[in-house]
Amino acid sequence: MPYISYLFEGAAHVGEVVGDGVVPLDGLSEIGRDTAGDTLASAPRDTRRTVPLNEVDLLPVVPHAGKVFCVGLNYLSHVDETKRDLPDYPVLFPKFGSSFIAAGTPIPLPPESGQVDYEAELAVVIGTSGRRIAEADALAHVMGYTIANDVTMRDFQYKTHQWLPGKAWDVSTPLGPALFLPHEVDLEGARISLTLNGERLQDSDLSRLIFSVPFLISTISTFTTLEPGDVILTGTPGGVGYRREPQVFLRPGDRVEVSIAGLGTLANPVEEERTLP
Amino acid sequence: MPYISYLFEGAAHVGEVVGDGVVPLDGLSEIGRDTAGDTLASAPRDTRRTVPLNEVDLLPVVPHAGKVFCVGLNYLSHVDETKRDLPDYPVLFPKFGSSFIAAGTPIPLPPESGQVDYEAELAVVIGTSGRRIAEADALAHVMGYTIANDVTMRDFQYKTHQWLPGKAWDVSTPLGPALFLPHEVDLEGARISLTLNGERLQDSDLSRLIFSVPFLISTISTFTTLEPGDVILTGTPGGVGYRREPQVFLRPGDRVEVSIAGLGTLANPVEEERTLP
Repeated sequence: MPYISYLFEGAAHVGEVVGDGVVPLDGLSEIGRDTAGDTLASAPRDTRRTVPLNEVDLLPVVPHAGKVFCVGLNYLSHVDETKRDLPDYPVLFPKFGSSFIAAGTPIPLPPESGQVDYEAELAVVIGTSGRRIAEADALAHVMGYTIANDVTMRDFQYKTHQWLPGKAWDVSTPLGPALFLPHEVDLEGARISLTLNGERLQDSDLSRLIFSVPFLISTISTFTTLEPGDVILTGTPGGVGYRREPQVFLRPGDRVEVSIAGLGTLANPVEEERTLP
Repeated sequence: MPYISYLFEGAAHVGEVVGDGVVPLDGLSEIGRDTAGDTLASAPRDTRRTVPLNEVDLLPVVPHAGKVFCVGLNYLSHVDETKRDLPDYPVLFPKFGSSFIAAGTPIPLPPESGQVDYEAELAVVIGTSGRRIAEADALAHVMGYTIANDVTMRDFQYKTHQWLPGKAWDVSTPLGPALFLPHEVDLEGARISLTLNGERLQDSDLSRLIFSVPFLISTISTFTTLEPGDVILTGTPGGVGYRREPQVFLRPGDRVEVSIAGLGTLANPVEEERTLP
């Protein structure tokens, strides 16, 4: 069964979703650095404190992610629409732990950007630390999988040739709703799709990833130690709003849903950011 | 007097450098998130535990930095040598907290790269949290200043158009030796220079920064909250090894020194990385 990070009665917990209920794991407050290795599977269940799923407030699956790596141009259909060359090395750029929001939380449209776009992605959460991880060993470092919407401010992404300012906005990026352990989900060829207000705008499957999850883990860990609670967003298929004709950007009142077969649906409304005066 | 993060008898401390000694600050183990605001200036001094400066092991000035922003192409002389257009927005890319090493620690040459290069830079450590910081208010968010050598693996920087893989190597980037509070140093027009084995290869002054420190803080905080312990590397002047003819890269036995008038000298030897078999 999948795992969630959530708030209940003001306190942060990790829980296993069982039917319509959430069973808290004893002594754990969030998925991330403290749930390394097989902690999630082996932690004692506090079944007496099971609560209805609809009474908890979801947090981003990893509420305080360490390093966050995004992969660009990792589906042929998206490489084609950007008219870029096929990469022979992953295009890597960052977000921050502060970028993430929970499933269901409104995606805020900041007043500075007029080009807020969606990107459906498979997200990988690291569970076991490693540097220079061989491709053959890489999956042993995965805590689990979830869904991300790699929300991007296109006007800031293209301010210069480096994409960070368009990618690393605080509280911009839905991550969730739940984490699935590798042995509990079969993602081979799983469909990945995105709808905006019910209209399907992205539709592909994970077999079309140019760089596989093991290859990404091996490549990134060549230069930095991957740690529990680090997150890799594996790239988006074709159909992003910026490349459509006419272009599509998120507007207040929109609803974006990203689905990956086996991992559920990550649904978020969109609203104007309420900034302080 | 400047501040250092250091190890003494196996424990981490923050200390103020007074003459040839280091006076530990009570209850603080490192410069960063826990030394926000005026903590450094106001913390009680434990003068009875003063130790000789040469008996402590320096740590990176910020041993566990939060977010790390680097600025590219922020001196005209470096823009010229890269033959790129003058930017009208800062070129921003990341390192990680794990990128930093202390003054004096060997810069390890990883076996995967044959193009390890130096970059002399002014580093800004954030001391007060803020989002959407106005330029006029930005300097109030600075904890202090130090020196960085933005060591870069050029072959990995240019694997794709996104620079992260060449910039974010673990234990690659000297940061130090000491932090100077803003009111204790006058950096206006301060000379910044770099020598490799005594030969001067970079030489400029901070008045030539295209984007000022307040502008950088305002720009970055537009999209993410700057927090105590975040670090901004403000870009390097012309003269980097990759752009020289013939090209210059770091080799075992080299010694690199970055100096900024008022902030001292950041000196590091270079050696082959000792990787595990």
